[in-house]
Amino acid sequence: MVGLLPREEVFFDLFTQAAENILQAARLLKAMLERYEQVPEQAAAIKAAEERGDEIIHQITDRLNRTFITPLDREDIHALARQLDNVIDWIEAVAARLVDYRVTRPTPAAVELAHIIVHMAEAMVEAVRNLRRLDRVEGQLEEIHRLENLADHVHREAIARLFAENGQPLEVIKWKDIYETLERATDQAEDVADVLAAIRAKRM
Amino acid sequence: MVGLLPREEVFFDLFTQAAENILQAARLLKAMLERYEQVPEQAAAIKAAEERGDEIIHQITDRLNRTFITPLDREDIHALARQLDNVIDWIEAVAARLVDYRVTRPTPAAVELAHIIVHMAEAMVEAVRNLRRLDRVEGQLEEIHRLENLADHVHREAIARLFAENGQPLEVIKWKDIYETLERATDQAEDVADVLAAIRAKRM
Amino acid sequence: MVGLLPREEVFFDLFTQAAENILQAARLLKAMLERYEQVPEQAAAIKAAEERGDEIIHQITDRLNRTFITPLDREDIHALARQLDNVIDWIEAVAARLVDYRVTRPTPAAVELAHIIVHMAEAMVEAVRNLRRLDRVEGQLEEIHRLENLADHVHREAIARLFAENGQPLEVIKWKDIYETLERATDQAEDVADVLAAIRAKRM
Repeated sequence: MVGLLPREEVFFDLFTQAAENILQAARLLKAMLERYEQVPEQAAAIKAAEERGDEIIHQITDRLNRTFITPLDREDIHALARQLDNVIDWIEAVAARLVDYRVTRPTPAAVELAHIIVHMAEAMVEAVRNLRRLDRVEGQLEEIHRLENLADHVHREAIARLFAENGQPLEVIKWKDIYETLERATDQAEDVADVLAAIRAKRM
Repeated sequence: MVGLLPREEVFFDLFTQAAENILQAARLLKAMLERYEQVPEQAAAIKAAEERGDEIIHQITDRLNRTFITPLDREDIHALARQLDNVIDWIEAVAARLVDYRVTRPTPAAVELAHIIVHMAEAMVEAVRNLRRLDRVEGQLEEIHRLENLADHVHREAIARLFAENGQPLEVIKWKDIYETLERATDQAEDVADVLAAIRAKRM
Repeated sequence: MVGLLPREEVFFDLFTQAAENILQAARLLKAMLERYEQVPEQAAAIKAAEERGDEIIHQITDRLNRTFITPLDREDIHALARQLDNVIDWIEAVAARLVDYRVTRPTPAAVELAHIIVHMAEAMVEAVRNLRRLDRVEGQLEEIHRLENLADHVHREAIARLFAENGQPLEVIKWKDIYETLERATDQAEDVADVLAAIRAKRM
């Protein structure tokens, strides 16, 4: 028994690392949009964070395949790992699109959405750190839902403005896609909250 | 034991409320597209239905966290609640886009898709009312799949027509997005049928 | 007992049929893009494969509802069936868009993505054939993830090129959608790998 416990702790530790890595990627994206210089270099730093995230997820999966007794149901470990991976993938996708579309200047709405993603990632880190005691993180999960609603609102206003300004069609296509990618990142973060709520529901 | 039963009934009752609320939102959307006047007011009524839906889902989740014995597996209650929430979110998203894009006149295909969504919601209400006896709702679940295929067909025809007419790019972007949002609502409705089928499969 | 075993084998056999049918649809799509003639006829052949796939999935679900002892957890049979269905649906959606958008000439990137989908389907067939012994298919599952990353890369380059060439907006909208549809097919194939990994994780 004594020998088992430390090994089980490793899962909690890896999940915390994955969530903290998402927070770092979110902060890099916010910094990139606020200080829009050396864009490809900043995008490469976010890509590097995403690859570190892949490595962490790989360690979780690998350990899952070699561990008999797990501190959470195997399918929940799997679902949470996969969903955390989705969040960082969409954060990285925003940075990649800014480069691929050769965007020269970010919009205020894009900066605002990046801020919201940072706040969601902060709440997510706090929730994942309390994976053993999810009954304590009701506030964080609610905050994530509130922020997702806010992001949805900002996203809709930005899209409405885009069409109202009646700009160049190719610019509209690009920005619509960038806003949607930002919004997808917030949806994925909300899905993490849903997975955590499902784990909590099971254990009540 | 006697005391427990009524409490369990509450879950079934709340799910029925959630499904009936989706049906109401679907009917409001259909009415909005058929009688395209006072558009922001009609969109606001759909938004209000969506918020009532959030409240019902919140009650389900809240009760789930306080109830020890549940009439369905906890994760199934969770999955069904979440998926019903997705349906109404996408119905509301259609109404919001009509406002945000300042659409002046709906197309026949949009009206037709709203009709299909109403029919899907009717089948969904019938299926959810029979949550205790899902073996009886094979017909409803099949009807939902049939309607989703039909919606897919209408959607594809509408998109093809949109490009064939070779209109203003910004109009094409808007309508492509509106059709896709309508189609996403039907996909989400089909996902409800999938969740119900999964619940039934478990209990056979 | 003796009588049960053969019946259980039927699930494995139907899953293999579903995977092989996806591979056939993928090869038809690749052939269509390489030899872009009689396009509606080639799209119809892919549609026919998709309908055969529906029939196989229907048999799996139907049998699930009539079988008491299943060789995998009921929900896993359900999840795998549904996810295999999603893959072929998106392959068919690519073919349908080529027809609906009246595309006159495919791009090299579209051909390359179709090649990748064929390779993913080959790895998927191999993995699904080993559903009894998923510990043996680590290589196939990793290959599917590698191919999805490759597809993502090809997709991004294609989108960047599309905007860099500064073409007609309607052409940009069409091709952006076709590339995204191809990429969605690869995402769905990766989701099959995730379902298989989740099944394996449960049984370790």
